[in-house]
Amino acid sequence: MAFNLPKEVTLIEVGPRDGFQFEKKIIPTELKVEIISRLVDAGLKHIQVASFVNPARLPQMADAEDVVGRLPESPGGIFSGLALNTKGVLRAHRAGLKHLEISISASDTHSRKNAGLSFDQAVIQMKEMIRLAREKSMGVRAGIQCAFGCVYEGAVSRERILQLVCYYSSKGVDAIALSDTTGMANPLSVKQMLQTLIPECRGIPVVLHLHDTRGLGLANVMAALECGVTQFDTAMAGMGGCPFVRGAAGNIATEDTVNLMNLLGIITGIDIVGVSKCSERLEKFLANKFPGKMHRLVLQEDLRL
Amino acid sequence: MAFNLPKEVTLIEVGPRDGFQFEKKIIPTELKVEIISRLVDAGLKHIQVASFVNPARLPQMADAEDVVGRLPESPGGIFSGLALNTKGVLRAHRAGLKHLEISISASDTHSRKNAGLSFDQAVIQMKEMIRLAREKSMGVRAGIQCAFGCVYEGAVSRERILQLVCYYSSKGVDAIALSDTTGMANPLSVKQMLQTLIPECRGIPVVLHLHDTRGLGLANVMAALECGVTQFDTAMAGMGGCPFVRGAAGNIATEDTVNLMNLLGIITGIDIVGVSKCSERLEKFLANKFPGKMHRLVLQEDLRL
Repeated sequence: MAFNLPKEVTLIEVGPRDGFQFEKKIIPTELKVEIISRLVDAGLKHIQVASFVNPARLPQMADAEDVVGRLPESPGGIFSGLALNTKGVLRAHRAGLKHLEISISASDTHSRKNAGLSFDQAVIQMKEMIRLAREKSMGVRAGIQCAFGCVYEGAVSRERILQLVCYYSSKGVDAIALSDTTGMANPLSVKQMLQTLIPECRGIPVVLHLHDTRGLGLANVMAALECGVTQFDTAMAGMGGCPFVRGAAGNIATEDTVNLMNLLGIITGIDIVGVSKCSERLEKFLANKFPGKMHRLVLQEDLRL
Repeated sequence: MAFNLPKEVTLIEVGPRDGFQFEKKIIPTELKVEIISRLVDAGLKHIQVASFVNPARLPQMADAEDVVGRLPESPGGIFSGLALNTKGVLRAHRAGLKHLEISISASDTHSRKNAGLSFDQAVIQMKEMIRLAREKSMGVRAGIQCAFGCVYEGAVSRERILQLVCYYSSKGVDAIALSDTTGMANPLSVKQMLQTLIPECRGIPVVLHLHDTRGLGLANVMAALECGVTQFDTAMAGMGGCPFVRGAAGNIATEDTVNLMNLLGIITGIDIVGVSKCSERLEKFLANKFPGKMHRLVLQEDLRL
């Protein structure tokens, strides 16, 4: 009945992409770069720094090139950007990024709302994006949105997800990301899905991208750890959501996940106080209280226990 | 790697006690009784309805006798009250309650702040309370606060907790409640603690009382389910906390726990919409937004999936 846990995990900070894009108030490029620098200092080795999408639809990401142009040094670290179409891939490449995240929704309805494409159209485009990224010698992390269900459609086809995973692994992508875009996963579905999919990944690491919509984020992390997953997307303070899905909630919080790993004796290399200070800075600037729990606790000396 | 889960669990609604006591704005007796009636209608079979403590310290509970005097019918159901000293036991008995919860903190510092007694003084009083409750033919649930750590002291003595459990089981109490008063438990410590304690409970059911201070509430529920625990304290909307502990956060939310059980195929007998309407009513009255997640989601038709 004991847990079977890994010794070390990698947390991929998606706050500057998935977190920032959800905010209406434009965050100045300078503050974005400052936050990214602080995250690097706090030990985050992999940070998603921007999304190369239509600035008319997502004005918060209009400065993606500027952000990438002003990134700090991060020896041995990875900065990545998200693209939803080939134009985005080319923009990310021209901006100088070496790591790309591409993603496709397993739900037709979500795909139409998020990317303006049916699933079949999105598949054609995804293949083109992988080809193009490879041509440009970019590393590719390939994702599946709504992998654990869709708030519009309910259950999504397990077959469809399996086919996507098989396609990704046949292309030898760097990592395969399963996104619980609208927080519908539960510990049971996480285990069932991972037990089916991991053998098809042929050794390519699986990343879990979880949202805490129903309060199950860290319970799902536990289930995934037991299945051997060692990479998780997290966002400082639990920022984030999906701008085109009603009722979407934030990513699992970086600090809360670091705290869990610390308690489990799993190494992350991340300084929870350093991340919490980024969260505090953003809460002040955005005059918002984010759903993460630990950043407020760790910044009060007497509650740090 | 599959979960070993029970078929059915009992959720004990502690909102009218642990939730209400945290609120500064006095909730009228009439509204308290209305909420309790709605909770009964929603399928809650066991509800903690009041705390028989010093009204000067906790004015919100000053109407405990009135609440008990106006409780609805609940065939086969249980209404219980909390007492922290013998005076409270007698008040609860005179009010007509048949089920009592008594509780003692495993942490000296917390005990002094919460009950004004050292641990040793509290033990003497606890024994007297059990004796008195038995004399009055009341059912007794006996609890241990700060069982998973204390925000003031850090780790608490496992020996001390074991001794309390052994005392409780020797007295044949109805149930033994382990409280994570300040949300310091994690899935690993929950499993370790339960694996040590359950054999000492001699068949007396263990109840877990969890707070979501660090976002681990439902992850801890999962760990406890795997250890065979089938009773959990929850509060509608995730209300609650401890009025004498800084940084304390709400109980795990009834709706969020029901949702998890529904997803796992575990029977609770509870109507999540009925509970969510109670939460909505209280949020309106108290002009507060509680930390639970599901009550807002289930009351929006198109997000109910």
